[in-house]
Amino acid sequence: MTSVLAMLTFTDAGRAIGHELKPADAAALTVNDHAVVRGDGVFETIGFVHGVPQSLQAHLDRFARSARMLELPQQDAEPWRAAIAEVGERLHEHPEAWARVVLSRGLDGRTPSGWVLGAPSPDHSAARLDGVAVVLLDRGLRSDVASASPWLLAGAKTLSYAANMAAQREAHRRGADDAIFVSLDGLLLEGTTSSLVLLLDGRLVTPAPELGILEGTSQVAVFEWAAEQGIATARLALDVRALHRADAAWLLSSIRLAAPIRAIDGLARTIDVELTTRMNQALLARRE
Amino acid sequence: MTSVLAMLTFTDAGRAIGHELKPADAAALTVNDHAVVRGDGVFETIGFVHGVPQSLQAHLDRFARSARMLELPQQDAEPWRAAIAEVGERLHEHPEAWARVVLSRGLDGRTPSGWVLGAPSPDHSAARLDGVAVVLLDRGLRSDVASASPWLLAGAKTLSYAANMAAQREAHRRGADDAIFVSLDGLLLEGTTSSLVLLLDGRLVTPAPELGILEGTSQVAVFEWAAEQGIATARLALDVRALHRADAAWLLSSIRLAAPIRAIDGLARTIDVELTTRMNQALLARRE
Repeated sequence: MTSVLAMLTFTDAGRAIGHELKPADAAALTVNDHAVVRGDGVFETIGFVHGVPQSLQAHLDRFARSARMLELPQQDAEPWRAAIAEVGERLHEHPEAWARVVLSRGLDGRTPSGWVLGAPSPDHSAARLDGVAVVLLDRGLRSDVASASPWLLAGAKTLSYAANMAAQREAHRRGADDAIFVSLDGLLLEGTTSSLVLLLDGRLVTPAPELGILEGTSQVAVFEWAAEQGIATARLALDVRALHRADAAWLLSSIRLAAPIRAIDGLARTIDVELTTRMNQALLARRE
Repeated sequence: MTSVLAMLTFTDAGRAIGHELKPADAAALTVNDHAVVRGDGVFETIGFVHGVPQSLQAHLDRFARSARMLELPQQDAEPWRAAIAEVGERLHEHPEAWARVVLSRGLDGRTPSGWVLGAPSPDHSAARLDGVAVVLLDRGLRSDVASASPWLLAGAKTLSYAANMAAQREAHRRGADDAIFVSLDGLLLEGTTSSLVLLLDGRLVTPAPELGILEGTSQVAVFEWAAEQGIATARLALDVRALHRADAAWLLSSIRLAAPIRAIDGLARTIDVELTTRMNQALLARRE
């Protein structure tokens, strides 16, 4: 696999000012970087089609929002754009590729570190065509957590993903591919690394970001496409019954794109093949 | 500052078999290590007195417990003990030192990485003598989270500490030194990087580990010492009123040791200087 790594360089004040390409498999971080020992940083995972980043501005906006929530040094977008662009260029021969963009509190928690790591995407056609089986897992938090307890960082895309990974393992243990988190008060939230979208009463609906979840860049792109197609959309508080009642449901993410949900807690459900295909075509057609 | 780094070496099956000393300030990890991108690993922070690790067995036991909760490859204790011992030896001239012991899911989430990073301890005498001001912060989770939702990893000492760091910043913003987490159902839990111990009705009491918190190695050591002194101890479910009603309260951790709580949410409270001094003497006298 051809990975490409651009390490950002920073001013003393912690602003990125440029980048250098480095071998992706070489050691690049000290063990005292706070990304490593505290999961204390933020990230984005961006999809590329023939080297062109998709929904780039939405990713950069969310990256900045997450960084603000963690009180990381404010960044200029330009050096990050340049690093992402160079990684994309070096992957342009691949129809689909991905890059992870990371800003860490860095060495001893004082000198930020940051990088863009890109590689060709794995083949996600099975998930896009045949769908994914999901289980519902309690996320343990109330749906008002983002406003009530901002220090819990609900809605920030941080590097502290150990529980998301454990939820994926729990899903696999239950014979499923992925998990959807549910709030303590019974509202649908998001996948472990994806957004949830339902076709409900003729509209595409998704749990509102105010529930302490990430605003999905692919979900936003699908809603923009839907508006062009004359399909109504809404961001709502949705309880678990809405998922069972929906005519179709998807997990949306930047690399796997739209994966239709084919089973919930072992209960099979119908896939909307035609709408899924159109969604994925629309997502792959994004150019920025 | 003289830091010492021992990088563990692993078999293909992910068991540590030895270690190599490396320069602590050199890059040692790739950006694709899952400690870095997922906070997906476990750690311990161990105190040393003149190079001798304190409560070593309790730390190793908890390290193994956390690793099991994350389904990391099972480890033999011996290579870890050897790495910790060598780091300790190289710090023996320092009256107090610390080491962070880390096991990460590693490269691409498949090949574990692990290390022991040690350094002389900062001077914590002010916190030990004058105490710390704390605020109470909601942890957002119910006190039955560990049994109800094990995938949330409550009670595992993972590298995903971004929210703990954010809670410390929130405490500083409120003019305090540290925060104590409270469960959604109003039970006292733990500090952001420490255990809570109260002197209540003549007994030393601490929130029970079953509440989804870490069993503090320093707390266990203090309770063992207390038993020798004829002071009764208990692990309980304790509500917030217990903290206000207590005759004294401490945050206990492996490096700062016993820090008496001198204020709660801005309300000053009495420090038990004599008992604090005896606790810290007992903690510093540990030899294993």
